[in-house]
Amino acid sequence: MISAVTHRVNYSETDQMGVVYHANYLVWMDMARTEHLRERGVSYKELEAAGVYLAVTDVRIRYRQPARYDDLIRIRCWVRERGSRRVIFGYAVERDDTDALLATAETSLIALTAQHALSRIPEPVCDLLDPTPDPVRL
Amino acid sequence: MISAVTHRVNYSETDQMGVVYHANYLVWMDMARTEHLRERGVSYKELEAAGVYLAVTDVRIRYRQPARYDDLIRIRCWVRERGSRRVIFGYAVERDDTDALLATAETSLIALTAQHALSRIPEPVCDLLDPTPDPVRL
Amino acid sequence: MISAVTHRVNYSETDQMGVVYHANYLVWMDMARTEHLRERGVSYKELEAAGVYLAVTDVRIRYRQPARYDDLIRIRCWVRERGSRRVIFGYAVERDDTDALLATAETSLIALTAQHALSRIPEPVCDLLDPTPDPVRL
Amino acid sequence: MISAVTHRVNYSETDQMGVVYHANYLVWMDMARTEHLRERGVSYKELEAAGVYLAVTDVRIRYRQPARYDDLIRIRCWVRERGSRRVIFGYAVERDDTDALLATAETSLIALTAQHALSRIPEPVCDLLDPTPDPVRL
Repeated sequence: MISAVTHRVNYSETDQMGVVYHANYLVWMDMARTEHLRERGVSYKELEAAGVYLAVTDVRIRYRQPARYDDLIRIRCWVRERGSRRVIFGYAVERDDTDALLATAETSLIALTAQHALSRIPEPVCDLLDPTPDPVRL
Repeated sequence: MISAVTHRVNYSETDQMGVVYHANYLVWMDMARTEHLRERGVSYKELEAAGVYLAVTDVRIRYRQPARYDDLIRIRCWVRERGSRRVIFGYAVERDDTDALLATAETSLIALTAQHALSRIPEPVCDLLDPTPDPVRL
Repeated sequence: MISAVTHRVNYSETDQMGVVYHANYLVWMDMARTEHLRERGVSYKELEAAGVYLAVTDVRIRYRQPARYDDLIRIRCWVRERGSRRVIFGYAVERDDTDALLATAETSLIALTAQHALSRIPEPVCDLLDPTPDPVRL
Repeated sequence: MISAVTHRVNYSETDQMGVVYHANYLVWMDMARTEHLRERGVSYKELEAAGVYLAVTDVRIRYRQPARYDDLIRIRCWVRERGSRRVIFGYAVERDDTDALLATAETSLIALTAQHALSRIPEPVCDLLDPTPDPVRL
């Protein structure tokens, strides 16, 4: 119930401090979330094609150690909470070689229609998104 | 004590939901913070040249309404808290024409040396960063 | 017939070489093109609302000197060639304070429908996009 | 002598046209180039640690078909030309499932010192970068 994707840090993600610019973690978390949904049987692409959009409403990130160019990093992702309209994902960003914890985070998403009106997460999708206890403290 | 920058949303910032991708708000907040420091008399560029780096350690964002392509948005920024090693900034992202509140956020930054060791915010800089009460609820 | 926008280089645009990452110039050129169209009386946002999309098909960039964090840069933009289906823009990226030429570029765009079929640039738009001789060698 | 990396298109890379924003191809090409060097025995990270920087000076891209969200794309990369100071890479961006050609490109890079002075590609690196005939027309 905890998925993991790996990602090689590329040059565009670095900044002049010589580390990964902090906004990029949000992209990594998005990648991890998409794969987490896929592993649980939900294609986010198909969800959108069916008129269900999941939009991020809240983000909380704690940066612990910097990620650096060419690092192989691992983003673990899980469902923290799930209602009929909202799902909260948790994340741990780690170095793949040392397992060092680089960041922890949480994002809250709500279901919207294509016209951006509030909607519900389809029941079959809901059923696939059972919450998991946090594997690390956020 | 509350600064404001404006920014025209460009095409690269949109996503296929037809709104601004959520990670871009972090870049806007960075731009607002840099100008806030400049207005208070602190050039972040010169701070780095003097060996003081401010690194983001914590982010909290609440997205309220989407920003869209070609919107002129305004990012207001202020200091929420300030210690000798850490400064917390608050942000309100608004549409410039309607004043609609699009997002509120907070970022926490710590002082580091060029070698990424913990450091202190130089006293003269500290003195320029007096906290301000939040103009909006975060 | 040659427009100019200015942009303050932000931290997210730098890389660990200590200069602006090269892909960001394409975003700057997009910003310059949008403002160029606006100055000539064409709102690209309204063009899309009317079902006309301009998609980039060819890019050529020559990087001459690096842009750096906090530089105020100026992007000049003009129309090089214009047909009924295609328009070619030229760009010069310069430092605003020294006028140093940082990059020159050209992008070719074609008109598409919302369904991404080949289309035509509406005649009234075409008429507004008269070519201008290059102010610098590309 | 032609390397290939795959990449899953993520949401941040899309724009409101519903396709991948054109600047992202430059990032993909950078990823492909890094892996190409690694496959030939050159770690770009170590090259930088040894004081040799490769900076992009010229880019040419032809976009043929759009890449879309969640597409698995493949970026093939090869050396087109190589001198003592400059190396030119070629790229083909393709859909991994259909082999459809999405874009072709070329980037020219020069060797710089850490202080951004002109330099030379170290001879052992040069020897590993033999040119290959283009597998597709650019």
